[in-house]
Amino acid sequence: MKFSITVTLKKDVLDPQGKVVKNTLVNMGMNNLKSIRQGKHFEIEVNETDPIFAEKKVDEMCKKLLVNLIIEDYKINRI
Amino acid sequence: MKFSITVTLKKDVLDPQGKVVKNTLVNMGMNNLKSIRQGKHFEIEVNETDPIFAEKKVDEMCKKLLVNLIIEDYKINRI
Repeated sequence: MKFSITVTLKKDVLDPQGKVVKNTLVNMGMNNLKSIRQGKHFEIEVNETDPIFAEKKVDEMCKKLLVNLIIEDYKINRI
Repeated sequence: MKFSITVTLKKDVLDPQGKVVKNTLVNMGMNNLKSIRQGKHFEIEVNETDPIFAEKKVDEMCKKLLVNLIIEDYKINRI
């Protein structure tokens, strides 16, 4: 069973990496760029047959290791 | 107009970062984890009204800066 996890910085958290990317793109001539924020993406495959239990496991992985809940939000999708 | 971009490593490209994450999760007791691969995620907002032109611009940004086409794949979604 496969899941995709998208981890993004919370709204009010500064994103210096995104800012650098934005400045670079603007310098390259992309003037219509308004904002850009960078996050992480994980593709996880688990050996489970029960989708609810599998999602619970993936959620546990996020909370314990993959996501810093103080500054990041996350979203789990089954793929 | 907002777009989300997911950048993943191509299938045959090694993912050392993902491997470390996997080992750590297995050591934490997640034995049913089969595989995990890490990628990047961008949220881009552009000042455009034409969705086709906007997506073209975002695609150009991916090709020119955000994605290393030799080792990475990407997917653009309008959000």
